[in-house]
Amino acid sequence: MRPTITAFAASPDRGRGLARDMRVRWALEEVGQVYDVRLLTFAEMKEAPHLAMNPFGQIPTYEDDGLRLFETGAIILHIAERHDGLLPQESDARARAKAWMFAAVSSVEPWILELENTGFFERDKPWFQERMAAVEARLCRRLEALARWLDDREWLDGAFSAGDLMMVSVLQRIRGAELFGGFPGLAAYVARAEARPAYARAFAAQLAVYHASLG
Amino acid sequence: MRPTITAFAASPDRGRGLARDMRVRWALEEVGQVYDVRLLTFAEMKEAPHLAMNPFGQIPTYEDDGLRLFETGAIILHIAERHDGLLPQESDARARAKAWMFAAVSSVEPWILELENTGFFERDKPWFQERMAAVEARLCRRLEALARWLDDREWLDGAFSAGDLMMVSVLQRIRGAELFGGFPGLAAYVARAEARPAYARAFAAQLAVYHASLG
Repeated sequence: MRPTITAFAASPDRGRGLARDMRVRWALEEVGQVYDVRLLTFAEMKEAPHLAMNPFGQIPTYEDDGLRLFETGAIILHIAERHDGLLPQESDARARAKAWMFAAVSSVEPWILELENTGFFERDKPWFQERMAAVEARLCRRLEALARWLDDREWLDGAFSAGDLMMVSVLQRIRGAELFGGFPGLAAYVARAEARPAYARAFAAQLAVYHASLG
Repeated sequence: MRPTITAFAASPDRGRGLARDMRVRWALEEVGQVYDVRLLTFAEMKEAPHLAMNPFGQIPTYEDDGLRLFETGAIILHIAERHDGLLPQESDARARAKAWMFAAVSSVEPWILELENTGFFERDKPWFQERMAAVEARLCRRLEALARWLDDREWLDGAFSAGDLMMVSVLQRIRGAELFGGFPGLAAYVARAEARPAYARAFAAQLAVYHASLG
């Protein structure tokens, strides 16, 4: 059996690799697991067959030999637990790598989503400048904490893990934001991860879908 | 060995059980594991010894026989994997329960935090009403999806799991919000969880800390 994941038929990020199927593709490439992709339109994501797999009507999902799973973090955890390469063998280090997976989606990504949503929904509002400054300040406190921890470490805790995969994927969302220029250590960390061959293969695969969607 | 967790010396929620140590206390009570608590002031949370355990300077942390862990979700996952009672034995059901843990912190909590932060930071701003309406609308779409999934299920997927523990803990944060009245199924779900003896023991333990902090 090879797993099947779902992805956008036409990614709103224009092939930049920010859609969350990219995180799962990357994990599968890291462990050397081939996979199939089922592409969904926005309409199909909100229809009953997909909602039965993901109640929030989002991609990616993961199907493998009867298992149907949603939530990017949970899918990557499942892949990491069933294959070598994304979690340390030693049990304490393994628990800490999982902590960084949760830290990425729970302690960093919400502040990045707030920044994205502010830019997306409020750019034309009279309060945009004032609110954006506050949102950026809150995010910067999180990034400062992360950068201080990373310091001169290559990865967050020992060898590259699913925790790094998740954290890098979250940070990529603000790569283009001006404030990210203030964190050269985090930018270098993202660049190290993107230099991994598994990342390059996953990026190419999702980009091919985008190019195909252009017809 | 019994684990030690950290908690607020003086919880800002005034004993309502919303601080995240409550989630870990609840998990430990569900599996019947006794534990110690080390209380921290806000100042101590931002000092080097605590930052070495949690780079973001937050509670709770978890220490057990050399393991030092942060992130509430990761701590609860660790407890759930080492004891019976919070994850199904069957492997697919186990993966799905972990998916609900991630869903709680990644697909629901960020929208609840945005609601809280809007009320906290922007109540006196001229744009408050307009922004709050938009924030509530985004949150309601997530709650509608969750309520539709829950339907007449007792718990999110089979027996009570760490996924329910996390989701209920997230929903408790908006129990007092007017919009929550539109979701009687979710309110009943939260009430079912709060009726569990393990929940009651954990709640009493954190409330005792609050009362003690009043001197």
